[in-house]
Amino acid sequence: MPSIAYVNGKFSPIEDAVVSVEDRGFQLGDGIYEVLRTYQGRLHAVEEHMRRLFRSLDAIGLKHAFTSAALEEIINDAVKRAGFTDSLVYLQITRGATKRAKVFPQAVPPTLVITVRKLELPTDAMRERGVAIMTADDIRWQRCDIKTVCLLPNVLASQRAAAAGCFEALFVEKDGTVNECASANVFIVASGVVVTPPLSTRILSGITREEVITLARKNGVPMEERRITLDDLLAADEVFLTGTTTEVLPVVKVNDRRIATGKPGPVTQRLHTLFRTLAD
Amino acid sequence: MPSIAYVNGKFSPIEDAVVSVEDRGFQLGDGIYEVLRTYQGRLHAVEEHMRRLFRSLDAIGLKHAFTSAALEEIINDAVKRAGFTDSLVYLQITRGATKRAKVFPQAVPPTLVITVRKLELPTDAMRERGVAIMTADDIRWQRCDIKTVCLLPNVLASQRAAAAGCFEALFVEKDGTVNECASANVFIVASGVVVTPPLSTRILSGITREEVITLARKNGVPMEERRITLDDLLAADEVFLTGTTTEVLPVVKVNDRRIATGKPGPVTQRLHTLFRTLAD
Repeated sequence: MPSIAYVNGKFSPIEDAVVSVEDRGFQLGDGIYEVLRTYQGRLHAVEEHMRRLFRSLDAIGLKHAFTSAALEEIINDAVKRAGFTDSLVYLQITRGATKRAKVFPQAVPPTLVITVRKLELPTDAMRERGVAIMTADDIRWQRCDIKTVCLLPNVLASQRAAAAGCFEALFVEKDGTVNECASANVFIVASGVVVTPPLSTRILSGITREEVITLARKNGVPMEERRITLDDLLAADEVFLTGTTTEVLPVVKVNDRRIATGKPGPVTQRLHTLFRTLAD
Repeated sequence: MPSIAYVNGKFSPIEDAVVSVEDRGFQLGDGIYEVLRTYQGRLHAVEEHMRRLFRSLDAIGLKHAFTSAALEEIINDAVKRAGFTDSLVYLQITRGATKRAKVFPQAVPPTLVITVRKLELPTDAMRERGVAIMTADDIRWQRCDIKTVCLLPNVLASQRAAAAGCFEALFVEKDGTVNECASANVFIVASGVVVTPPLSTRILSGITREEVITLARKNGVPMEERRITLDDLLAADEVFLTGTTTEVLPVVKVNDRRIATGKPGPVTQRLHTLFRTLAD
């Protein structure tokens, strides 16, 4: 089976996997999700992903009877059935399918969808040369800390970035505060210190973000969580992104501005090496 | 057939109507919608709804080959098949089903879903006595003028309002500016003038809102589109909501505050009567 889906207890090829047209995920964006990957067939940071998943469910008041152990078992089963060397796992939970109304339904079971596809990663060239990103006004809602499927603002920003030949869109507030990218967290290196925006309702608590912060601290790399402005970022010695498939990816250009020498920097490379040692 | 769905060319009972788990409407909120109703079996304001639908498609850059005439034909067919005295028509278009990625897909056809259900309306008691509404911080994204399915903020606010026994949630900015409700536009009557917030990226251009503005002007009722604060609203002589199923619905309580005498006012009743004469 090339790629696989699980929907409310049933496995099938992705092509055959469906949900009701009245699923609240489809009609109302009333759901949350996680994206995990495997390294050599083993799920990476599954406990952290499960913790964040349950935080998201709580944040939107989605009542359920899921347990971390039960979800992990289904995910592992799906990964085995798909049989890829390395897998990308997508998991989504919605507030179920029922006659459309914004108010929460009563006694409607949630929808659980899991898909497993072959993992696709940034190319070696992107890792070696770094990527370009493009800024976007951060017009998203005020609870970007919740990993919901209401991703249209991210879709539109990502599309504009891609149309300009950029790998990612970087959300920046009107006052110049840098938040995060459409699918990744952002870090800079300035005067030998690694800096990333602190957790707030404007950014998602990235699993890789946390891992990189911990790795930096363990390995004596000066690390701060504090506000970054676009000016700070443009003047930085290094800029990099973190994410589940992105890992630690150097950024060498922001809009039409080159970052430092326009080449990936040593701190980014060191953190990526440390990350791969941890993950592999 | 009690209630009916149409999905990409195929009619079925709603219970059997499905979309792919990889539909971008389900995974990314990457779609837009319209809600229409019939009066005595005839679609109301279908041209206005179609115009707004195409504006929404344009606003999210969704490429398609739909025409207003073709969509109207399908909707009318669905309404006839369902055969209710009066119908609620839900129409949703998404950027299609394909391997998940935020960037727009190439050569993937959009998904078109239409459902027809029996129309359910506010009760006579609600019309006669008026309803209570509850304020909510407007934490939505900055493009509320686009009718997208990314409705989680509306879902959460509606649920909090319903839990407090209220009919609707009213989105208010931090500075006290009143925008709109989770599913309706809002109007006040103050010193004999009907006032509603002007169109902006913070509110949806309601079809009933436009009809009521036009009706007021035609019938010599003083009417202004200008900023309303929560203080203006609490001090108003009358408050009412407009929407496709709401029509013109009196509000008599906001949070724990009674509006004027706590009874529906004469201007609201007059505008509702004028609206029904137009619609019926």
